Amino acid sequence: MGKAVKDQLGRVIERDERPQPAVILVRPQLGENIGAACRGMLNFGLTELRLVAPRDGWPNPAADAMAAGAVELIETAKLFDTVEEAVADLSFVLAATARRRELEIPVVGTDVVGTEMRAKIEQGVGILFGPEKAGLTNADVVLADKILTYPVNPAFQSLNLAQAVNVFAFIWAQSGDVTVPDIFDDVRSDVAPREELTRMFNHLEDELDKAGFFFPAAKKHLMQQNIRAPLTRAQMSEQEVRTFRGIIKALSKGRGKARGA
Amino acid sequence: MGKAVKDQLGRVIERDERPQPAVILVRPQLGENIGAACRGMLNFGLTELRLVAPRDGWPNPAADAMAAGAVELIETAKLFDTVEEAVADLSFVLAATARRRELEIPVVGTDVVGTEMRAKIEQGVGILFGPEKAGLTNADVVLADKILTYPVNPAFQSLNLAQAVNVFAFIWAQSGDVTVPDIFDDVRSDVAPREELTRMFNHLEDELDKAGFFFPAAKKHLMQQNIRAPLTRAQMSEQEVRTFRGIIKALSKGRGKARGA
Repeated sequence: MGKAVKDQLGRVIERDERPQPAVILVRPQLGENIGAACRGMLNFGLTELRLVAPRDGWPNPAADAMAAGAVELIETAKLFDTVEEAVADLSFVLAATARRRELEIPVVGTDVVGTEMRAKIEQGVGILFGPEKAGLTNADVVLADKILTYPVNPAFQSLNLAQAVNVFAFIWAQSGDVTVPDIFDDVRSDVAPREELTRMFNHLEDELDKAGFFFPAAKKHLMQQNIRAPLTRAQMSEQEVRTFRGIIKALSKGRGKARGA
Repeated sequence: MGKAVKDQLGRVIERDERPQPAVILVRPQLGENIGAACRGMLNFGLTELRLVAPRDGWPNPAADAMAAGAVELIETAKLFDTVEEAVADLSFVLAATARRRELEIPVVGTDVVGTEMRAKIEQGVGILFGPEKAGLTNADVVLADKILTYPVNPAFQSLNLAQAVNVFAFIWAQSGDVTVPDIFDDVRSDVAPREELTRMFNHLEDELDKAGFFFPAAKKHLMQQNIRAPLTRAQMSEQEVRTFRGIIKALSKGRGKARGA
């Protein structure tokens, strides 16, 4: 692990090539914040940036200016249209948000999140940060396994996007000194990649649509959340996802014919 | 302790009036960074800002713009000509720096600095942050009891001033977060009683039996495990169980008729 790179004083050092959490900026608005987030990430050794539908497109000169030398992150940032696509290859997804939500998603504190991520890092870990004004929507958050909440001042809790990313990068670096306990019973070896889960949800919701399940239409969104939240929390294995795909198929088989009859 | 203030949603909350570390910006250059530092401080509950000979004078409109609502820090910031004066009333002073120095000053890590500051907070604690370009001089650092070093990427260790202050404020808040808020609790209050889960499993497995899903019969037991295990891990709420009962009903509806047809 590690390839030789030069530091700012020209010293040759080993680059840490171990897997890292992906920082996923969801619909970010200001290029300046994306650039400042890059700088803060690289300061603490994070290099995997993903952008979902940045408002002003990508690349963005305003981001370059604020990255202050963290150009490699600007250049290697991956662009996605949807959050689902951005988390497709991940098995453990966090959502950074301070807002209380009605969602049944467990919250993890900054004191333990680093250890938890490191225990799962080989399977693919990522964290969602929302847009500057509105933050993450419930539809974004429901894609996460856990909500990460910072110990913020309740009277002034809205962090700048870049600073929120910076604090996360610090938490990651800080937790690197912590020895991960051998016994970490939360760790399961074969959690399905998120894209398989997304395909399963789409399959299920397609069939439910055909069955007229989402009624009234105004409640569809809420009903989807009640479906996705528990199945996401379950950290299903690939085998379990296959079983559930089979269930959906078995239960919906022939239903269409019945209606036609 | 505490006086009533309103939070961003207009809720009245008690303001934490316990002693805090002073954040001391030494010869800061850009008003924007001072303003962004104010915002980051207040996000994590720090309100005591001291400025030593800011390059562009004080007050500074560029700082106001970046403080984003943290105006009380701008207004109450104390101005000093020298670092000596700025630390005069303090008993424990840190210097934030990543540079190796020839000074015989002990280094403290981010993992323990919060606890150490809290132990000394009644006697007056402060931390020095240097100017953007040059950082703290040895003459500044020698006024400190300890050097605080962040776990930075050796190849990209120069933090933006505001982000360095922001991380410090986070470290302070994190170290005081001994009382775990109830939203941090992994245990969810309305997990469905196990009997509701059992009824849901029976309902699902009945329908799967009718659909001929459990084939070959020898594998039924294993397939049941793949169904029950993830849904049990999910710690479903009563509402979620009701949603899943609805799903089973919707998907299997009419299927029997199809066969009969």
